Amino acid sequence: MYETLDLARARAETPGVNHVVHLNNAGAGLVPLPVLDVMTSYLRLESRVGPYEAAERSEGAVGNAHTALASLLNCSRQEVAILDSATRAWGMAMSSVPLQAGDRVIISAVEYGSNYLSLLHLTERLGVSLEVAPVDGNGLVDVAGLEAMLDERVRLIAMVHVPMHDALVNPVADIGRVSRRHGIPYLVDACQSVGQMPVDVAEIGCDLLVGTGRKFLRGPRGTGFLYVRQELAHKLVPAIVGLDGVEWLSGSYRLAPGARRFETWETNTAARIGLGVAVDYALGWGIERTYARMRRLAAGLRKDLFGMPGVVLHDRGREQCGTIALSFEGRGTFEVRNALKDAGVNTWVCLENAACVDMQQRGLSTLLRVSPHYYNSEQELERFCSVLEDILTGTRRERVLA
Amino acid sequence: MYETLDLARARAETPGVNHVVHLNNAGAGLVPLPVLDVMTSYLRLESRVGPYEAAERSEGAVGNAHTALASLLNCSRQEVAILDSATRAWGMAMSSVPLQAGDRVIISAVEYGSNYLSLLHLTERLGVSLEVAPVDGNGLVDVAGLEAMLDERVRLIAMVHVPMHDALVNPVADIGRVSRRHGIPYLVDACQSVGQMPVDVAEIGCDLLVGTGRKFLRGPRGTGFLYVRQELAHKLVPAIVGLDGVEWLSGSYRLAPGARRFETWETNTAARIGLGVAVDYALGWGIERTYARMRRLAAGLRKDLFGMPGVVLHDRGREQCGTIALSFEGRGTFEVRNALKDAGVNTWVCLENAACVDMQQRGLSTLLRVSPHYYNSEQELERFCSVLEDILTGTRRERVLA
Repeated sequence: MYETLDLARARAETPGVNHVVHLNNAGAGLVPLPVLDVMTSYLRLESRVGPYEAAERSEGAVGNAHTALASLLNCSRQEVAILDSATRAWGMAMSSVPLQAGDRVIISAVEYGSNYLSLLHLTERLGVSLEVAPVDGNGLVDVAGLEAMLDERVRLIAMVHVPMHDALVNPVADIGRVSRRHGIPYLVDACQSVGQMPVDVAEIGCDLLVGTGRKFLRGPRGTGFLYVRQELAHKLVPAIVGLDGVEWLSGSYRLAPGARRFETWETNTAARIGLGVAVDYALGWGIERTYARMRRLAAGLRKDLFGMPGVVLHDRGREQCGTIALSFEGRGTFEVRNALKDAGVNTWVCLENAACVDMQQRGLSTLLRVSPHYYNSEQELERFCSVLEDILTGTRRERVLA
Repeated sequence: MYETLDLARARAETPGVNHVVHLNNAGAGLVPLPVLDVMTSYLRLESRVGPYEAAERSEGAVGNAHTALASLLNCSRQEVAILDSATRAWGMAMSSVPLQAGDRVIISAVEYGSNYLSLLHLTERLGVSLEVAPVDGNGLVDVAGLEAMLDERVRLIAMVHVPMHDALVNPVADIGRVSRRHGIPYLVDACQSVGQMPVDVAEIGCDLLVGTGRKFLRGPRGTGFLYVRQELAHKLVPAIVGLDGVEWLSGSYRLAPGARRFETWETNTAARIGLGVAVDYALGWGIERTYARMRRLAAGLRKDLFGMPGVVLHDRGREQCGTIALSFEGRGTFEVRNALKDAGVNTWVCLENAACVDMQQRGLSTLLRVSPHYYNSEQELERFCSVLEDILTGTRRERVLA
């Protein structure tokens, strides 16, 4: 399968590879040329003919984001809402599920910090109990353990597909079957999985799923999206509605059917168009194919790092995905990240608040995250390893300080 | 004052004036070159060095949006939150004011449709009474009449500074004095006034104020902002919080002080930078100066339209601002708008739901909105009038249909 991926083309269409070794795709990926071009052209069009007028002329491109996402997630376009961030999408989704005092909400231990805080914030106010599902030895959600927690007071199960600081891939489809069996609304955070690996809402069996454009989909910043299963949508009451989210009935209103009730009329049109192009671009390569290459790259990198003195690998999971989490003996993660950056290698430091329950339980305050994508070359990963080795043995550190 | 505005420079810095007669600034203005350039350059930088890495390099430009808005509104940068739209900002602000069954909320009759729906949506669920302030003969909020409505159950006064479909300018500072005197939180929608005329939160005496970047500020789409008076911020509880809106206290959290509690970490950085540049650009011209020119243009245009057969002017207000609302005898507004557009003149049709209470009361289902800005030339307005005359006398209509 790998042989069929044209790496030369992938790199030729990624201007950033001529400037940096970008191993921060779990933060935000390098956009490919078609995404950059469509956004800059569209901004120029807006400046020439007027912003609303540009949107009218580009109706197809604007509407394509919903169509492309529906195709990516295997749902209908009426089940997709586009928002300005996954945090906003997740918060809007979560707070739209009817909850009252005495209810229980179950989350994964690797819940993203913003999600966890949003829930803590809401549940504290409502008197709802927030509980963490147990994990197995690989750090995955223990599905049987989760099922054992369920009773009629559980009103929401919120799970992270892939955490931002770890290689593990949670068994979201197994959890989906459990949630369906018990009739409990099920919300999946797919921010780190979408674009990286196949994410199929029918296969997962979720009611709500949130993703972002800027990470492995290589789309614009300021784009998030929300899948809402058609059958559930009419039960969900968004905290905030706009003209686009309702049907106006002269003096009264009705919430729009489907996911649209979560959208507002105003949007960054350039980013929305760019998101559609990014999703089509990802589908063009084939997610199965790019994921196979990414896993191969990450597995090779893990092997090389495993033998490196001073490096501690923190990855868990059975099917390990592209994200690699590291710490260092005698070196701070920020120090290492900055030295890597000075050498033209982009990585990221995850703080404790990023996946607060899990990192606190494991006594981790920071982790260096290394997240390659399919467009990275083997040579780039070799360069990362050699620079890291220099840093850890002190060679590069002294060079930087000198 | 007018003589000091360098119209030639304003037009040279506005690429759109070479392509269209843009009289849809109340919808979205034409961005000036510095805004277009900074956004396209920044998107290219993101594609070269990585999105997070570009933001780190551009810390000053990213942070400038808050500083520029604080300067525009006469407040501190801690009192400004930047969001993806004014609808979202208004909804977040409104829903953060503690309300409970039996409370009363007072709005203006010209409340923007999305605001009205958001409030209707919230108040219906909570059992809060939503009431409309009386207006005087000019369509302005009757301040004495509003004050007479107040009692201890009124928990929020929400007013529109300038409606989207009318030239009237509500006496927001007079209402501010009343709201202060009674200690009632006061929210102003300044979407149509900010960038058009001076908007000073201290002078208005509001607790919350919402604006948008894309209209008279000539900034990017997908940008809204919220002013939150420092003294009130700690009492406001946003419906949704993100990592940026809280202080993380290892296992617990505290809402961030000031307006930041309304922000999420993720943002469209290019748009945020563009917003800062747009605000600085507007301040560079001087809002007093550009407003003086705009009012002069609009007054002249009203005079020309007043005598035109088949044209009905709907503008109200004492101090009439730049927005002109029209309907036509024997011609539909959409028909006229489309014919104008075919002739290269941008205007907009306001639907009943845009200012639902007011338009319904007045029996108006649509209005053609004509909204010039300071960069429009006298020749452009003459061209608009001559095209409109052709359309209404049938000359142009036949040409278009032929």
